[in-house]
Formats: sequence, C-alpha cells, structure tokens
Amino acid sequence: MRKVAIIGVGCTKFGELWERSFRELAVEAGVRAIEDAGISGEEIEAIFGGNMSAGSFIQQEHIGTLIADHVGLASLHIPACRVEAACASGGLALHVATLAVASGWYDVVVAAGVEKMTDADPNAIDELLAASTDREWEAMQGATLPALFAMMARAHMQKYGTTREQLALVAVKNHKNASNNEIAQFRSKISVDAVLRSPIVADPLRVLDCSPVADGAAAVVLCAAEDARKYTDTPIYIRASTQACDFLALHDREDLTTVKATAVAARTAYKIARISPTDIGVAEVHDSYTIAEIMAIEDLGFFEKGEGGRAVEDGATEIGGHIPVNPSGGLKACGHPLGATGIRQAVEITLQLRGDAKGRQTNAEIGLTHNVGGTGGTAVVHILSRSLP
Amino acid sequence: MRKVAIIGVGCTKFGELWERSFRELAVEAGVRAIEDAGISGEEIEAIFGGNMSAGSFIQQEHIGTLIADHVGLASLHIPACRVEAACASGGLALHVATLAVASGWYDVVVAAGVEKMTDADPNAIDELLAASTDREWEAMQGATLPALFAMMARAHMQKYGTTREQLALVAVKNHKNASNNEIAQFRSKISVDAVLRSPIVADPLRVLDCSPVADGAAAVVLCAAEDARKYTDTPIYIRASTQACDFLALHDREDLTTVKATAVAARTAYKIARISPTDIGVAEVHDSYTIAEIMAIEDLGFFEKGEGGRAVEDGATEIGGHIPVNPSGGLKACGHPLGATGIRQAVEITLQLRGDAKGRQTNAEIGLTHNVGGTGGTAVVHILSRSLP
Repeated sequence: MRKVAIIGVGCTKFGELWERSFRELAVEAGVRAIEDAGISGEEIEAIFGGNMSAGSFIQQEHIGTLIADHVGLASLHIPACRVEAACASGGLALHVATLAVASGWYDVVVAAGVEKMTDADPNAIDELLAASTDREWEAMQGATLPALFAMMARAHMQKYGTTREQLALVAVKNHKNASNNEIAQFRSKISVDAVLRSPIVADPLRVLDCSPVADGAAAVVLCAAEDARKYTDTPIYIRASTQACDFLALHDREDLTTVKATAVAARTAYKIARISPTDIGVAEVHDSYTIAEIMAIEDLGFFEKGEGGRAVEDGATEIGGHIPVNPSGGLKACGHPLGATGIRQAVEITLQLRGDAKGRQTNAEIGLTHNVGGTGGTAVVHILSRSLP
Repeated sequence: MRKVAIIGVGCTKFGELWERSFRELAVEAGVRAIEDAGISGEEIEAIFGGNMSAGSFIQQEHIGTLIADHVGLASLHIPACRVEAACASGGLALHVATLAVASGWYDVVVAAGVEKMTDADPNAIDELLAASTDREWEAMQGATLPALFAMMARAHMQKYGTTREQLALVAVKNHKNASNNEIAQFRSKISVDAVLRSPIVADPLRVLDCSPVADGAAAVVLCAAEDARKYTDTPIYIRASTQACDFLALHDREDLTTVKATAVAARTAYKIARISPTDIGVAEVHDSYTIAEIMAIEDLGFFEKGEGGRAVEDGATEIGGHIPVNPSGGLKACGHPLGATGIRQAVEITLQLRGDAKGRQTNAEIGLTHNVGGTGGTAVVHILSRSLP
C-alpha cells in the first residue's frame, strides 16, 4: 500500500461558540485546511467526517453530505462518509481516510471532525456521554462516564499508589501548555490546589480533572506521500494508523487500570512504523479525564505500567521533558468537541513536526496521536513523522 | 487494488420485532453470515457497521464496538467502525468494507447494518427521518421526508406524464415479490386499488407508497477475491463499489425528477466494472417511496429518463421481465430498517446470483444494489457478479 501524507491542516477555535453553527464550524476548519494545503476544492476526491452528537444535539444526521454540501463540493458529487466511534470519531475519520488514500482508491481526501455541543441541555450532554458506554449494562444501572473513569482512577491509585496530586498535575500541565495555544478553550494556568478544591464530579475526580464540553471543528488534507512535495515543502507523513476495540462495558475487561485497546493499537502502530515508543518525541493523548492521560502514557509504552503518575510528577511529560505529552493543552484545556478532538490532535502534531507550534514548540522528529472512545471501547493511534524511512 | 468477494451472507427477519433487542439483531445477522461463510470468528479482522437511529432511539452510540463486543470478538481487539449516511448507512458500510479489503489492509471483514426502530415514538421516527434532510433549510421549514418525495413525484408526473397508477404498480410488484421472501415484513399481495385507497401521507404519496419502519439486521462477509474459493464454491464478486453525494436540500438541486447522486455513482460503477446498464440482470434499488424506484431505474440507466413509470406498467421490472427490480420486495415490502437495508440488498443479490433465491429466483449473471440517503444526498451503488472478467 501507498504511504500517506498530511499536506494541510485547519482548526477553529474550541470553546463555547454560541454564535457559530455546526455547519459554519465545519466549513471554517475545512477551508482553512484546504487553504493551508494550497489546493483548490476541486482536487478533493472524498470527505471523511467524524461526529458523535449531531443526531442528538442538532437533530441532524447525514453529516458527511452536509459537510460536503456546505463546504461547496456537492456539485462535484464526491463521496462523503461520516464515521462514529464516540469520542474517538475524529481519530476514526483520520484512520478511514488514511486507508482510502493508502489503498490507491483516492489521491487527495479531507478528514474532518466537528461537534456543536454547548447549546445542548446539560442533561442531554450527560445522556450523550452515557451513550458512549454500554447503555443497558452501565448507563441504565446508574454509571455515568465520569463515574466509570473514577473507578479506573481508584483502581490505579490502589494498585500503583498513584496519588490525587499526580492526577491534578496532569490538569496543571495541560492548562499551562494551553496558555500558548490560541485555539484552546481554557488558556488560564491553574494550580494543584485549585484542582483539589474544585467540586467533586465522581470521587476522586473533580471538575478540573474533566475535559470540558466544547464546540469546534478540525480538518486535515491527506494525499499520497509520493505526491506530497508537489503541494508543500513540509509534508508530514503518516507512518502508522491503527484502531482497536475492547469490551464496551468496563466490568467485562481484565484490568481496570489499563486500556487494552490503547495497548493493542499502539503495539500494532509501532510494528507498522518499525519504531519503538522511545522514538516518539511528542504525543497528543486522550486526557478526557486526568486519569486517562496517566493510563495512556503507560499503555502507549512511554512509561512502565504504574509509573505514569510519578512521570507526571517528575515533569517527564512537560514540554522540554523526557516526552512532551499534550503540548496543545490536550482535551483538558483545549476542550473536547468529541468528533473534532482526534483531528485536532493530528493538527497539533503536524504543527509540532513542521516547527509551527510557536510558544509550545517541542523538538521532535516523530509524534503520536491517541484518541479513545468512551472508557476505552475504541482506541485509535496515529504515528506522524517529518520523514519516511 | 485487489478484487473483493462476498463469501457469506446473513439476515434477520425484518419487521416489528418487539422481543428482540438491537444487539440481539446484530448478533443474529453476524453469526448467520459467519456460519454461511464457514469461517470462525477468529478470522474476522475488522467490522464495518451501518446504523442511523441508535443514538436517537436506544440512546446508544459507539455502535461498532457494541457489535464487535456482543458478537464475541472484543477479546480479539479488532477495529470496529460505524458509518452513517442516513438511509444509505448500510450501503456505505459495504463500500468502506470493500475499500478496506481491496486496499490489502484487511483480508477478511464483516460489513453489517442494524436498526431497531419500532419501539420508538412515532414523533421520534418523524424527527429521525427529518434528520436525513437538511434540518435547518427543510425540516425546520415544515418539509417532512415524504413531503419532499411527494414534490419529486409531482415534478416527475408533470414533466414525464408518470401516472398515479404507475406509482401504485411499484408497490403492487414489490409486495408480490415479497410474498416469496421469508424475511420480508409484508408478505401479503396488494392491489392498485388498495394503494389508491390507502390514506394520503403527502399528496400524491399514500401509505402504501411508503416503505415501512422496521427492525432488522443484515451482514455479509468479505474477503479478497483470490482467496474466495478457499471458503466457498459460490463466491460473489464485487465488481464495483461507488458512492456519490449531492446537495443535501432538494431546493439546491438542478432537477427534482432525477437523483444526480444515483446517476453519478452508477456511471462510475459501470466504468469501473467495464459494463453497461444492459449487462445488469437483476437489481435491488432504493424504493423508500414508490417514486424513488421509478427515478432509480431511470437514473441507473435501465430505462430512458421519463420512461420509468411506463416500464413498470409494462411489467419490464417484474421477475421474468426485461430487468427484475427488487425481487426481494424492496424496501417497500421487506421493510426499511435504515442502516440494515443496504446490506440486505447485497444479501439478496448474492442469493440471486448463487441461485439460492427460491420462489423469487431471477436469471442473472450480474446484479446491482442501489442505496440512497435521505432524498438523494447520498447514493451508493454496488455491482456484483458470479464471475470476474
């Protein structure tokens, strides 16, 4: 199969965008990506869009065509595909789009993610998040999404001695990083004390352990690697694109302290890219809750299992540390417009590898994105690189 | 790219299945397809599932993983992808699954569709169907899905002289065909008079012009064509798999009497398969409303534009006619569990080409499936064949 490259990226501001509609957000991100790639819309051969909430929140399905139409490509009658895997919908869109170009089926495609959440009733948001879990066996029994992550946090604390302060330090780092990210929802720095004093959501997780509900959209333009330098001097190559599933309900899994889908997707990705975790110089991981980032940096192989909390405490995941994690601010501070997140992660790593990340720039040749659905029923991993081997 | 073959098919009964849950339906169809293929579950490398309504009707997203889990494959951690393109979600699942095997990325995958609709409140069903149209520019202005098809019917009648009776004859034929299909929701024959006396939904369309809301699931197992004979003596080959979009809102389209997405997807499919419409011996087309079948058989090139109504009247689309259309009974009589329909169409054409269609058997070497989202914002076409050229 062919190698694939990212030649354009675009992202809206994330946050409470009350004056912007779903379709406006999709168009803004898409047009930015196309402009960044320096191509014309006529060159786009297909669109792959990730979205979770539109059916529930704006009573709109048929999202692929909606995006193609409003971005001005309906008259070309190109294929437009919406994918959904809860909070991993964006990563999945990038995965399927990569597959579509790698196969030779298409030469130039857009992978996008968009979500419009902040107009929804808070109860509707709770219900939507619960729809990422097993409705019959979890949500209907009273387990909310944060409650399930709280159980994982408790198990991790008990098994590995992870501390409440270490969880808080994830949020502190990500808010600090986001202070240099113009698209982030929360750009204010916070203290460990502020996290520990914030209201409890599901013990031990507090408000400032949780990624915020947000509106936003992101898009990337992909082409065959062999054609990438026709479009840009700084193509970023997709060295691996993998997806794995796990049991949907937490109680069916072997171990509450690990997200097996992440471990499997990462192992496969490293094998495809012929690298090891130590080759990764920067990572955007799925910190929907602070405990999720600690589990992720272990399951991705950056640190030994159980060492994640300590690594955060030691500053190993800071910009300038052993491996910078979530230099963008992550879901925690950028905001988490579900289907947009996986694509925003790819935008961030592309900017990092291009050297365009401004005040949050890291020094990396190879980067990784990690997007999770629900409590880990889906994980999608991408390895991006400045060069092909 | 590699050629792809269908080596197993499975379908549940379609209809009001009040005692069967969403996940039970998915499992039943999937297990039947795997058994039909004579493979073990461990050989499945990925799942692609089409679904539209689960978020709205059973408050469950993350459908790909739900299916993988409940079909017993979560412990293998395989990728599971849900796609959505309104009523074309099933066709889209088959398209993406075909692409996944054609690319060489996977060797054996399942494409499935599942929908659980009949427990939902009728108003919720209306809202869901409206979500396939442009919510802001159509549904919010009062246009329901049947109202939009009624406009297309009126335009077709005015421009081409298509008659109310010709519309009715589509329903009469499809109910007659379904009388020989054990999975069909409606197996009773009906008369033109019964259609014309049924209550008006949106003038000129009446209840018996509309496909019914249904529960159901369908699945097919795909593998690389070169491996197909290891599994079965009667592989059915996918000669083309295409998708096209159009403006989401009807008022933006050039012509109300044609579904341009169908015409484009079909033209591309014939080109890929290197055949012409006259080579198609049997077709399952998207008769969500009777007018939709008449437009489809024109837009697919089986009949000249404007001749569709007359072709139906002449019996050209009957089993034994010039080109049998919807020998299964179509959406009209099988029922239309949105995301399941596109896969059920592929099941039917596979049975037809294998010679396993019993009382509704046609005589064809090459067949076609045609699945539409909403009023034609998406069309997906597959060309299946008993042999490769």
